[in-house]
Order: sequence, then structure tokens, then C-alpha cells
Amino acid sequence: MERGKPDRRRFLRDSAALAGVALGATRIASGQESADSDPGLAHLKAVHAYGQRSSFEKSIRIGNNGLDRPAPGVPRDLGMRSPLQDVVGILTPAPLHYMINHNYEPPNIDPQKHRLMIHGMVDRPMIYTVEDLKRLNPVTRVHFVECRANSVPQRKARTMPDATAQVTHGLSSCSMWTGVPLSLLLQSSGLKKGASWIVAEGADELLHSKSIPLEKAMDDCLVVYGQNGEALRPEQGYPLRLLTPGYQGINNVKWLRRVKVVDKPYMFKMESDDYAEIRPDGKNRWFDSQMGPNSVITRPSGGQHLPGPGFYAISGLAWSGGGSVRRVEVTTDGGTTWKDAEIQQPVHRKAYTAFSFGWDWTGEETLLKSRSTDETGDVQPSVAEYAKIWNLPAGYLESGQGGFTGNFCAIQTWRLKRDGSVENALFS
Amino acid sequence: MERGKPDRRRFLRDSAALAGVALGATRIASGQESADSDPGLAHLKAVHAYGQRSSFEKSIRIGNNGLDRPAPGVPRDLGMRSPLQDVVGILTPAPLHYMINHNYEPPNIDPQKHRLMIHGMVDRPMIYTVEDLKRLNPVTRVHFVECRANSVPQRKARTMPDATAQVTHGLSSCSMWTGVPLSLLLQSSGLKKGASWIVAEGADELLHSKSIPLEKAMDDCLVVYGQNGEALRPEQGYPLRLLTPGYQGINNVKWLRRVKVVDKPYMFKMESDDYAEIRPDGKNRWFDSQMGPNSVITRPSGGQHLPGPGFYAISGLAWSGGGSVRRVEVTTDGGTTWKDAEIQQPVHRKAYTAFSFGWDWTGEETLLKSRSTDETGDVQPSVAEYAKIWNLPAGYLESGQGGFTGNFCAIQTWRLKRDGSVENALFS
Repeated sequence: MERGKPDRRRFLRDSAALAGVALGATRIASGQESADSDPGLAHLKAVHAYGQRSSFEKSIRIGNNGLDRPAPGVPRDLGMRSPLQDVVGILTPAPLHYMINHNYEPPNIDPQKHRLMIHGMVDRPMIYTVEDLKRLNPVTRVHFVECRANSVPQRKARTMPDATAQVTHGLSSCSMWTGVPLSLLLQSSGLKKGASWIVAEGADELLHSKSIPLEKAMDDCLVVYGQNGEALRPEQGYPLRLLTPGYQGINNVKWLRRVKVVDKPYMFKMESDDYAEIRPDGKNRWFDSQMGPNSVITRPSGGQHLPGPGFYAISGLAWSGGGSVRRVEVTTDGGTTWKDAEIQQPVHRKAYTAFSFGWDWTGEETLLKSRSTDETGDVQPSVAEYAKIWNLPAGYLESGQGGFTGNFCAIQTWRLKRDGSVENALFS
Repeated sequence: MERGKPDRRRFLRDSAALAGVALGATRIASGQESADSDPGLAHLKAVHAYGQRSSFEKSIRIGNNGLDRPAPGVPRDLGMRSPLQDVVGILTPAPLHYMINHNYEPPNIDPQKHRLMIHGMVDRPMIYTVEDLKRLNPVTRVHFVECRANSVPQRKARTMPDATAQVTHGLSSCSMWTGVPLSLLLQSSGLKKGASWIVAEGADELLHSKSIPLEKAMDDCLVVYGQNGEALRPEQGYPLRLLTPGYQGINNVKWLRRVKVVDKPYMFKMESDDYAEIRPDGKNRWFDSQMGPNSVITRPSGGQHLPGPGFYAISGLAWSGGGSVRRVEVTTDGGTTWKDAEIQQPVHRKAYTAFSFGWDWTGEETLLKSRSTDETGDVQPSVAEYAKIWNLPAGYLESGQGGFTGNFCAIQTWRLKRDGSVENALFS
């Protein structure tokens, strides 16, 4: 309210006496500190020391069927998919951030004892405590992390009509990360001539290790200790994680304990085995790490139900490892016509970007799709375009049996039926 | 890695055979879905359905001494302060968001049964379910919420040397909120001539109600259902909350169930009693709701300990109800010289803004302060300047007994001692 408006002056005049009396009463009471002697209040303070969500909220991560490999001698994976269909805005709550641990259970690391070593082809090898890193100027960035297996159609569940957005795209999440630039640590140690790669190693039981080009490490990689305002969760690498914005999840080494500067990639199991892309024609891509452009409509999406014809905001998430999302188009007629969706602020590079598109549903069955374009002009491909890009034989993706999972980012399709139910229809 | 670099071509050639074999093994296993028959894995999936923080993280909200009023006939408050000294980045994790409930316990509301009514001086009164609101185009905004009693020096604990940033400034927090503009709902109902205020009412037992100028309601107020990517927490108003960016916390009505459009403020208890500002000289301010500009250094801050001389990033948070933070200055010599701190991205209007300032501590005792300036040019005042603005008598604030709490936002001072300990020194 503007000062000097008539209303305000009247209240000043009419209410001063009453307010003065009431304030006096408050003043007397506020000096007392005896409330903690109330056992009911003490109990409430304990309950609310660290709050919980509503008992009506049931959204959870679900197991990542098919990645929990029971093959003899192969370490089993613990994979949990994020419930994208329930997420609002652009952040994934930490308890629901997707995770794939290639050795079951996250280690329970004492941050006081944890160390990060920077060594290899550097002039000054360094060992940092977590507190040492917190003494440096912090940076905060919003970035998605995504498993390269996200949304691939080679697993049966992925193409079933009842698949939700959690099943189709739940191996990605987005957080606000806080830490220090890896480039700062590398520069402080001094890079030697010939250095061209780094090897990052985690403190999990398997010592997960990953080769990353030095060019990427010096560009926008972070060593993060914070996630969405609090300490990293153990499932996300507590107390330290390497963040490689826009790169396949496997590069974002959790429980980071070592960065070695080297002159070539080390060809660890994860990069010479699962994460190499052998196409059906025998050709290959190594270290093809950049994800996207991608997008998915989360409302309405698989498993949801529209109560009837009328206005709906079609909303969802778009992202790209290539940078910021510049455009999202939506079709409500199976691809005959595409219209620009509204891109919601805030927009960050290599981060979830929320979009919405106002639509009047007539009640007829139709197919809904979204298509994103990033700042480099890369456009999210259709399934057919994706197959062509990777030279896949006809019917290969549709078979649901291929081992090929080359950063699949093809357009997702949802079928909205006349009864208001929504089904997965990837190949429609 | 750039395509066509020598390294990459070599790997393609040398490793294709090995990778092919390994991929084959994966392909066979990936079709199997029997992992859930492993009881250990099933247990882990249950544990990680909704993740927990590390057992080493102990940061909690603490009770708000002095606000838990035991005066007869006065509803007691449940106040919990946010641990600002532990927060990283600009968001407060939902479990640690400050809360003041004027009726003890948050209600446990079934979102299916909850309704929001828009009525009063409108052409078309409306009743919305939560799902109705989710059908509209969502907006996401980062905003702080702050109790007008935050950082006021009239409570004893506030001025004690061992006060932490949680004690001094913990009645504020910042989240990424998702919902719909209140203006959209009001416009849909059609405002009648003469409408000039709204009254917002919550569904708590006391039906907390607040008068808010219509101009503010139509400007940037939101009806939010999401917080940091998930549903609002019960402590923050689940399933619906009114958000009045930059205004005193009391305006951000939780468990929102009713917005009545009216032609005057209704002078509820909370606005005619506690939240009226009676100055010692008898003058007053009504509905003086806008907060800040404010700031606080969180590292180093009260209760923390620096291990010894050397480099430290002095970091903290700045915010203002007037808009975005344009500048933060830091002094490391008690105010003799001020230097610009680095403002960290992202910067949002009426939101926490992180700042940091690289500093070499010699090991001598000194006083640390921060001072923010917002986009309107408003500069955070010193304690003396604040007293002058509000015409407070000499020694009034220092007495620790005044009932006056007029949006106190004076510069905070921390004393860094030679042993590395940090003390509250508000009046130094």
C-alpha cells in the first residue's frame, strides 16, 4: 500500500489505542522463555526439527527393471527411477532424484575423513578436505543428470502401453548444485604439457572410474558438495560428486576421491563395455557423452486420467546437453500440426526447462507429443529420424530387444483416449 | 571430445571386438526381470524409494525462543528457525524451511477434499480443487519468505555473543515455488468496481486471515502448490499457499482456502495487534509489509571456527522485498573500508542471492559485515541508521527489551577472534 493513501491514514488514527494495548500484552509475554517446559510443545519441536512431507503424498522412486542384472559374476545395479509425472517446476526433490549405483548400496562416508586428490600430470599434486573446498568461492548451477539408458526402447517395460513418464524418462533428474569449478582445482595444481584427459574415481566399493576429456573438465565441470540447498545426498555422492553438465550420467562420478590428469582415456570397464555404442551395422561411437535434446510431456502422461473435455495446460520438461532449450513445440493431433509451447522461467543451460501449452480437449482420442530445440539448433528427432541418424535397420527399435542405447532422445508420444486415460504410444 | 580427433579414432579401431563381446553379455541379461526375487535388493529398493540424507548431517531447525508465548488465552506459536549457517546455494531444503504457526500444529489436509474459493466483489465467484489449479499453465518462481520478526534485536538470544546465523536470521528461507498467478484467478472471476483489497484465509484451526492490497495481489502474488520440485510441505501450507513475494511472512497465508475481494482491509488480530508497528514515539506504520534490503554472512558466522590464518571465501545471502539484489559489499575491518563482493548466479527478484568475497585472514581479531543494495537503490542500513529511520531513542535497540520489530534489516556484525571462533556482535 502506498504511503499517504486515505485508507492508511484512517487506520492509523482509529486503531492506535487498541493496538497499543495489545502490543503491551505481547511485550510482557515475549520476555518469557518457559515454553519448552510444555511437553506437548517440546514434542512438536522434535517432530519439526527436520520436516516431513504430507502423509497424502505417495510419490516414490521405483526399481529400474532390467538393469538389476542377475548374471553371475556381474555386480548388480541398484537403479531407481524418478517420478517425473509428479514433479513440479524444474527441480527434482533430492529424495526422488534418480539413481543408478553399479554396486548396490551407496557408501556411508564420514565427510571429516574424506579426501579429494588432484594428481597425475600436474605441477603440484593436492589433497583437499571437504572443508578446504568450502573455503573457496562457491558456485551454484542448475543442471540435469541423465543416464544414457534413459528412455531407450529396448526394455520391454519401456514400450508397454501402461508405462508412466517415470518408466519412460525417469532415469533423469535436475538439481541446483553447489560446489567449485573443477577448472579452479586443476589450474591451482598446474597442468603439465600433454595433459588431455582426466580420470575421475569414486570411493564406492568398486572404485568407479571414468575418463573425461580435459577440454570438458576445464569447461564447465564442477566438484559439488551441495544439492538443492543442503549437503549432497549419499545416493548422489555424499560428500563430493563430479558434475559434468550435459554428459551421460556415468561421467558424474559420485563419492569423488581422485582426479588424475592423464594423456589418454583409460578405457575402464564402464567405457569399454556397456557405455560404448555398437550399432547394429558394427560401427561405434566412443565417448559420445553429450545428451539430448530431449523432452517429455508430464501432464497429461501415461497412467494419468483427464476427468473430461475442457481446458488443460499440457506441461512437461525439456533439456539438452547442448545448452539451453530455445524452443519447445507441442502437437495435439499426432504430429500433423506443431505449435510453440510457452517456455517457463527460469531457463538454465543444460537443465530441465519447463514448458506448457494451453489446450481445449474436445474429448476425442488423439496423440500428444513434444519436441525441443536447443541453443545450438539441434532438434529432438522423431523415432524414425533417430533410427536414420544411427543407421538402425527397420523395426530394430520397435523389436524391444536391441542392446543399442545410443543416447536415445526420440520424441515421446502419449495416447489420450476418449475415456480420459493416457497411454504410452512411443511408436505411434 | 571432438569427433575425428586421433584419440577417438584409435579407440574405435582397437576396442571394437572386445566391446562387442561385452555388449553381447549385457544384451542377454537385460531381458531378465528376476532381480526383485532377491530379498536384499528388494529391501534396498524399499529403503531408496524415498531417500534420506547422510547420517553425518545433523543440521536441524531449532525452536524460536520467546515466540512460544505462554500468556493465558493467547494461542501459542510453534516457531522453528532455519539453519542458515548450513545452507548452500540459494534454496532452503523443505525440511529446514523456517516456520511459524500461530496455532501449534499444521493441519493434515486431504488435497482431494481441499477447496479454494474466490468470492466477494467479483462477478463470478469460483471454487477450485487443487487439480483444477494444476490444469492451468504453471509458473515457477524463486522467492524468500521472511517473518517480520527476523533478526530483530529485542529478544535476549538475538544479541548474545553465541548466537548463530540461525538464531539471528533463521526466520527466513527461500524456495522455488510453483503454482498459478493469483491475478489469473481474480481476472477469471472478474473484479467489481471499488475492489481495493483482498482477504486471504487459511484452513488452520484459527482460520488465519490477512488483508492484502489488491494492487499487490494483482502484481506478483501466487497461489502455490509446489515447493522445490515437490508438493508443498504441510508446514508450508499443503496443499495450497498464498505467496506474496517480498512481503512479511504473515501475508503468505498457508492452507489457503479463501480469497475474498473487498474494499478495505479487515483489521484482523494479526494486523491490528502484533503486526502493527508502534514506535516508541507513538507513531505507527500499518501494512508496512515490504521486507529488506537485508543480508547476512553465513560463512564465517556465529558458532563457526576458522582453523587458522589463510584464504577464506566470505560467503552469505542477501535479499530484498524491493526486487533483485544489485550489490553486496563486505567489510573485513569493522566498516572502515567496504569492497564489492561477487554476486553469484542465479539472481532472482525477491529471492536469496548468494555472494562471496575472497579474503586472506591474517589471524588478527576483526569485525565482518555485509551490506546489500537492491534494484531500487535501497541500501541496507547500519543499526544506527535504522534507529534514525524509525526515530528510535538512543539505546532503545541495544536494551533488548523493545516491542518494536519494524522489519528490522540492519547490518549484521560477526566478530572473528584470534582463536578462530566467531561471535555475534550486532552492536559493534
